[in-house]
Amino acid sequence: MAAGKAGEVERARRVPGQVKGPFVDVRMRGFAERSSLQAALAWVDAAARRLAAEAVKPEEAAGRVLTGAAPVVPVEPARAVEDGYAVRAQQTVGASPYGPLLLRLQDGGAPLGGDGAALVVAGRTLPAGADAILPFAAAQARGAFLEVLAPSAVGVGVERRDEGARAVAALPPTRPLRPQDAALLAALEVRSIEVVRRPRIRVVVAGPKRRADHLATADACGPLLKALLARDGALAEVLPPAEGRRGLAAALAAAGGPDAVLVAGRSAVGPDDDAPGALADVGELSLHGLAIRPGGSAGLGFCGGAPVVLLPGDPLGCLFAYELVAGRLIRRLGGRDPALPHVLCEAELARKVVSAIGFLEACSVRMVDGRAEPTGSPDEAGLASAVRADGFVLVPEALEGYPAGTRVAVHLYQPG
Amino acid sequence: MAAGKAGEVERARRVPGQVKGPFVDVRMRGFAERSSLQAALAWVDAAARRLAAEAVKPEEAAGRVLTGAAPVVPVEPARAVEDGYAVRAQQTVGASPYGPLLLRLQDGGAPLGGDGAALVVAGRTLPAGADAILPFAAAQARGAFLEVLAPSAVGVGVERRDEGARAVAALPPTRPLRPQDAALLAALEVRSIEVVRRPRIRVVVAGPKRRADHLATADACGPLLKALLARDGALAEVLPPAEGRRGLAAALAAAGGPDAVLVAGRSAVGPDDDAPGALADVGELSLHGLAIRPGGSAGLGFCGGAPVVLLPGDPLGCLFAYELVAGRLIRRLGGRDPALPHVLCEAELARKVVSAIGFLEACSVRMVDGRAEPTGSPDEAGLASAVRADGFVLVPEALEGYPAGTRVAVHLYQPG
Repeated sequence: MAAGKAGEVERARRVPGQVKGPFVDVRMRGFAERSSLQAALAWVDAAARRLAAEAVKPEEAAGRVLTGAAPVVPVEPARAVEDGYAVRAQQTVGASPYGPLLLRLQDGGAPLGGDGAALVVAGRTLPAGADAILPFAAAQARGAFLEVLAPSAVGVGVERRDEGARAVAALPPTRPLRPQDAALLAALEVRSIEVVRRPRIRVVVAGPKRRADHLATADACGPLLKALLARDGALAEVLPPAEGRRGLAAALAAAGGPDAVLVAGRSAVGPDDDAPGALADVGELSLHGLAIRPGGSAGLGFCGGAPVVLLPGDPLGCLFAYELVAGRLIRRLGGRDPALPHVLCEAELARKVVSAIGFLEACSVRMVDGRAEPTGSPDEAGLASAVRADGFVLVPEALEGYPAGTRVAVHLYQPG
Repeated sequence: MAAGKAGEVERARRVPGQVKGPFVDVRMRGFAERSSLQAALAWVDAAARRLAAEAVKPEEAAGRVLTGAAPVVPVEPARAVEDGYAVRAQQTVGASPYGPLLLRLQDGGAPLGGDGAALVVAGRTLPAGADAILPFAAAQARGAFLEVLAPSAVGVGVERRDEGARAVAALPPTRPLRPQDAALLAALEVRSIEVVRRPRIRVVVAGPKRRADHLATADACGPLLKALLARDGALAEVLPPAEGRRGLAAALAAAGGPDAVLVAGRSAVGPDDDAPGALADVGELSLHGLAIRPGGSAGLGFCGGAPVVLLPGDPLGCLFAYELVAGRLIRRLGGRDPALPHVLCEAELARKVVSAIGFLEACSVRMVDGRAEPTGSPDEAGLASAVRADGFVLVPEALEGYPAGTRVAVHLYQPG
């Protein structure tokens, strides 16, 4: 197929154009032009809708994302969270070991008398009127009376459930629930929580799996994408490696209805780079060739109604095309914050970073004595630079790098 | 049982004394003295040994921790990571679209001639002598010759496997493997990786599971600990809630040989706080009562050779006793960095923090406009303050708090 003229290329890349344009074969030619990262992200934002909700129990809720509607919490009275005596705090003011005050011991089931005190164990509801717990160390029972040896204050040792309900109502909808969030929902006896369904993502790795002289792309990109998808809360279905344009097309179009498909390998401009053609055969190639490095042979499209991301088979390109483009799609589907999930820190560059003008470039860095030190040249391929790195720096399209000493934002990898 | 004299208390708390001391019953009395967090951590460090290794495949290695011995990587020649022509970079110096240089096209299987160029696709080994890839955009085949339109440089488009092997050898042994680490091991065709076995942790939650007026401690602490253990790389076996001293003792001593046991609830000084006694009955209570808040009723001991941590049933106390003490035990068993796993940032306090002298106190904070704002008073119980929080600040034992404006270290919760 002949390379398109400018107009055709433009139609094939219309953003967020979901009209199928003519397929432009870039094999053995290179990309005539590339889409900006911004255009790719606009495509992603238009293509990916948050998935539907499903109900989970609190003990399965950690790591899941609320749909936005805050869980409904039953209203109940305050409870003790430590053992001791339920009192009115006011009645303990001024007590000391040398000047103990006396309260009247009573049953915990009845409302608290004006000078009453009732034994409670952690977890029980407080008698009406009580507003504090006096710990055992601050009190001494003497027959029908309680010697108060130290003052308490309103709210000490007391859990107010409306506080919990308010905290639950304020949970941000895009942030995965943390251990304490799930536990509070459990403590509040919320039975069922509406969370966004986990995206089911098909991973198609272009084979062949191995030849004697062949880089194990399939071996590298499969584990890479599986782990990245797990990080972003998705379920990966990694298919057996697919061969050739026909094999890739079959894997793309296979039954099963995933929420999105990632294809790793055969995305570039080599003679056997069949992934773009395969996608055009069974779906739509909306955009191919991005102005990013590494990962510039990435592409975007649809198949069977599901968004498809073509990723390079070079594992470093696959990593950064995932981080910069595909990950946003996955996080949008899963209802998470679409922004990059790394912790951001500001640091001074220990050495200069060189970058190609016109490309958004990801430069791997490691942190040494609080400064960011590049771990590889942008032309050095392979995952070694990313494995040596603690994170990466993004150099915008318009710059040709940063001089040493520049303060830059570092996206830090998180442990695990 | 009578509270011990000072000498007895001391023996019961000897650190890291693994000699069984007399059991000191603190119920209805309060703690006569408390161990420092430092003493508790020294006990943990003495009690927890890194577990044995097991072999996993690269695709299962993300999130796992190396044992320290770097994986052995087979030595192989350099490979192309992009499509194009393998060349000697030296031969391309000075090339431009207006002054192209000519190279002789040859077969990729033979060593590269002095002015040779060979078509390669990403993943193939380079012909001997080649040290760079010339992309298709920078070259044009003309019969038996290749017009070079731009220079290349040594290493461009080439993956040197010794770089990968060096990066693998430098992987830190306590850091969980990241997606790119697992992928590089796969790309280097490492078949099997020695990682530390995941700790199997028994979680015993003190019941009863629910009474009409009873806080759902069992409901809250189970999900809390399950999620925290997952974060720290352990496998949780949450037993059905255990009742009473005898029930707790049976759960502690049950067959199954976990690597450690966490008991949540019944750890404090109430009349039904049976966990310390149960541990003393079937194992050893080495230390009970810590100078930390929340979480001060935590205890440490052994049962059947496995370390045991008693945690408060109050979910906030359970959370912080886990974070400050139990989590270190779990991470040590799993070969991880024993330090707190949160991201540290420095921030100014938006409001003062009040803390009890003699207690190491964890104060929940949220980040508002770059400043840390306390989310609850230290006496306010329940998980709400931790759910509203982005992290926490630790106030050392010797201080009674921090004034507003103090720059403090914030331990930030990570998403998920």
